[in-house]
Formats: sequence, C-alpha cells, structure tokens
Amino acid sequence: MQRAKIRLYVDHPLGQGQDVPLDAAQAHYLFGVMREGAGSHVALFNGRDGEWTAEVTQAAKKRGMLCCVGQSAAQLDPPDLWLVFAPIKKERTDFIVEKATELGCAKILPVQTEFTNSGRFRQDRAQAHALEAAEQCLGTYVPPVADMQPLAKLLTDWDPARKILFCDEALVGPARTLGALQPGPWAILIGPEGGFSPAERARLHAMDAVTPVSLGPRILRADTAVCSAITLWQASLGDWR
Amino acid sequence: MQRAKIRLYVDHPLGQGQDVPLDAAQAHYLFGVMREGAGSHVALFNGRDGEWTAEVTQAAKKRGMLCCVGQSAAQLDPPDLWLVFAPIKKERTDFIVEKATELGCAKILPVQTEFTNSGRFRQDRAQAHALEAAEQCLGTYVPPVADMQPLAKLLTDWDPARKILFCDEALVGPARTLGALQPGPWAILIGPEGGFSPAERARLHAMDAVTPVSLGPRILRADTAVCSAITLWQASLGDWR
Repeated sequence: MQRAKIRLYVDHPLGQGQDVPLDAAQAHYLFGVMREGAGSHVALFNGRDGEWTAEVTQAAKKRGMLCCVGQSAAQLDPPDLWLVFAPIKKERTDFIVEKATELGCAKILPVQTEFTNSGRFRQDRAQAHALEAAEQCLGTYVPPVADMQPLAKLLTDWDPARKILFCDEALVGPARTLGALQPGPWAILIGPEGGFSPAERARLHAMDAVTPVSLGPRILRADTAVCSAITLWQASLGDWR
Repeated sequence: MQRAKIRLYVDHPLGQGQDVPLDAAQAHYLFGVMREGAGSHVALFNGRDGEWTAEVTQAAKKRGMLCCVGQSAAQLDPPDLWLVFAPIKKERTDFIVEKATELGCAKILPVQTEFTNSGRFRQDRAQAHALEAAEQCLGTYVPPVADMQPLAKLLTDWDPARKILFCDEALVGPARTLGALQPGPWAILIGPEGGFSPAERARLHAMDAVTPVSLGPRILRADTAVCSAITLWQASLGDWR
C-alpha cells in the first residue's frame, strides 16, 4: 500500500476497520486547507498502535470520519531513556524537544537548576513540539513532556535503579567510552548554559546512580550536548546497535 | 589570568607583546556598545594562534589598538574531518554550520544534489555563522566554508585517500559499528530532505572511498543526522576518544 502523504496524530485507538472521528481543527485542515474529501487516504498514528492508512468516509466543514484500512508501519517505541534538561532560550528549547523525539527518548523532563535562565516552561508548547517532530519524521511514538520541576526535588525522589549519564561541562577532555556502561533504564542530564552550581555538581557526583561523562575537548552548547549524548547512548546501549 | 569576558575574532597574528589594531566595527562594539576603554582586557583568537588576552592600549570612536599580554588557551585544531551536506532551509543550514563548528569539523562543503531544494547558498553568511559559533563556544578554530558546488563535480574530483562516511537514509536499521573504520582523512556526507537520487546513490555505492552507514531505526532530519554522524565519528576516530 502506498504511504499516504498526509500524516495526522489522533488520540483514538487504531486497528483494522476502526472508525476514527476527526476534531474540528483536523477536519478544517484536511478538507479546507488540504482539499481532501471522501475516499482520500491519510496516515494516522496515536503513539501506541503504529501507523495506519485510513480512508475518509465522511467529510464535513467541522467534522469528519476516517476508517482504518491497513497498518502501514509497526509501532516503534524508544528504549527506556529519559532526557533531563534545563530549559534555555525558547528556540533552543524547542530544538531540544524536537531532537530528543527524533533521536528516540522515552520521556522528556525539564528541570529548574540554580543557574537556569528560564523561570517559565510552557509544557503544552513543548508537548505540541514533540508531537510535530514525530509527525514530520514518520515517528510512531511521542515522548511525554513533564512539567518543569526543581532539579533538587527530582534528585530527592530519584529511583536509584535508573542510572544518570551526567554530561558534566567541567569535564572537557576525551569522552569516556560509553561502551562499558551497564544496560538498563537511563536518564541523560544536561545542564543550563551557565553549567551546574558547585552544590549541584557535588550532589550529583555523590550519587551512586550518576556516571559523569565528557563530550569531547570542545565546549558544546546545551542543545548540541543533547544531540551528542543521546547519539552516543543510542549507539552503545540503545536501539542503534 | 582571569578569562576576559569579551571575545573577538581578529584576522591578525597573535603572540606575546603583539599589537593588534581593531577595525571600525570592532572599535564601535568594544568602546561604544560595551563601554570598554584603555586598560580593559579582551580575549582574541584568529583561528590559528590559540586564544590571547589583550589589553586595550588605544581607544577611539572608529579605531583602537590592543596588545597581547598572555595566551589564555592553546590552539585546538579539529581532526581532518570534512562535512559535505546539501543546504536545506535557511535556519537549518545555519544550524548545520554552527553544529559542525562546535563538534569539530575542519572544513564545510555545501553541495547541490539532484533533490536539493535550495539553489542558492550564501557562503559569506555561512562563514560568518561558523565564526560566531567559534566565538560563542570558546573555539580557537573556524572551519572554512566552501562555495556550493554540484555533488557530481565534487565526486569526480574526489581524492580517493579521503574516505566518505555516507549517511544513507535508505539504510534505516541498526547503525553499523563505526569502531571498525580505518583512521585517516574522512568526510561525512549528508543528503537533502528528499534524500539522494537513485543515480547519486548508485554512484556513491560504487566508489571505493565510500562507507554507507545507517543512523538508527528512526528517520532523522538532515540537521539531526549531521550532529549524530559527527558525534559518532569523533567518538570512534576523532579527538573525543
């Protein structure tokens, strides 16, 4: 079956013969903007049932109905990797969310650190961004984005079974070989532009779950560090092996 | 010596006791915008002599003179890695240039492929972007950005001693282990959004210098692929080891 060109996220179960209603915004986009109508094919995903090709069975101005006619891609969930990061400027935060979605993170957790510039984090905006990244890159999984919380609280409640890959900007030098890392649930922790405070660094270094790593001899922006750390983790422990 | 807060790129030799004249734009920035004056300290780099702390010895509206008082960072050149990429939308092209600079590429070569959307490439804009990325990330090296050229021409003139890591978007699956790659000069090749044409792919696969690799089971945007491929290369063969 040829892949449908238009791809939509729906919050509805998908399966053979399943009817899927559209909301007003989606009906407007599909029938008003894209000029599709009854009989058109669209790709649907909901973050859990893979991607399905669906046929438009009813098209109206503010509503519509589709029917799933076949699965076009199996569900691909990411490995159990979280990204914990300190939000930076708006565009770079959007970028981090996009890249974490593309590169395969299971969950995105923004944290407020002592040196975090941004006191505010729009969870709804970031979640929409993750959804858009999955939509555009033919992903079938959308990582949930949590509300921002203080790093100190996150660490107090931390499950020690989940290891933390602490990208310590103070360790500028050859990157530690990640091949020796233990498999299992992990989180990557990336600091804000100003780095972590001395108290935060001391606390992190004292935690059993934490492995500090360097990302090479150059200083990287936070958004670059996100891409590099996820890539190295995926290649050593994730589903890029 | 404390690191100076302001960091400028100058196209002038740097060394102990060396006088360095400022151009009108830099003098305006330093004395007009940043309100510095005689006696202030500034960090200078020129892409080849490391980073130097310099003291302002003359400050005027449209000119100024600095004198190098000590080296604050040694020159750090990247490994012999080129990035060959097909320019995409403006912001994403800026982003690729920025990331290639931060992650440590020696040279940036934009190419026109059969499916390249963008027929035009502003070399001066991209070069300024590379310089800005080095300035902001405390880099001492600025990769030269070439003018755009057709991929076919680049491949015809290719030196077979330089290997090509061909990030083939048609190979979606586990990434090949890059650890087995042969050391030496390399280039990373990233295609445009629509991928390479069948003729381009056939030609690349037939070249001895080419090693096709996959970047995991998800489809990545071109800018994400740039970050991931440079990271994997640096960790296997470059100066992140």
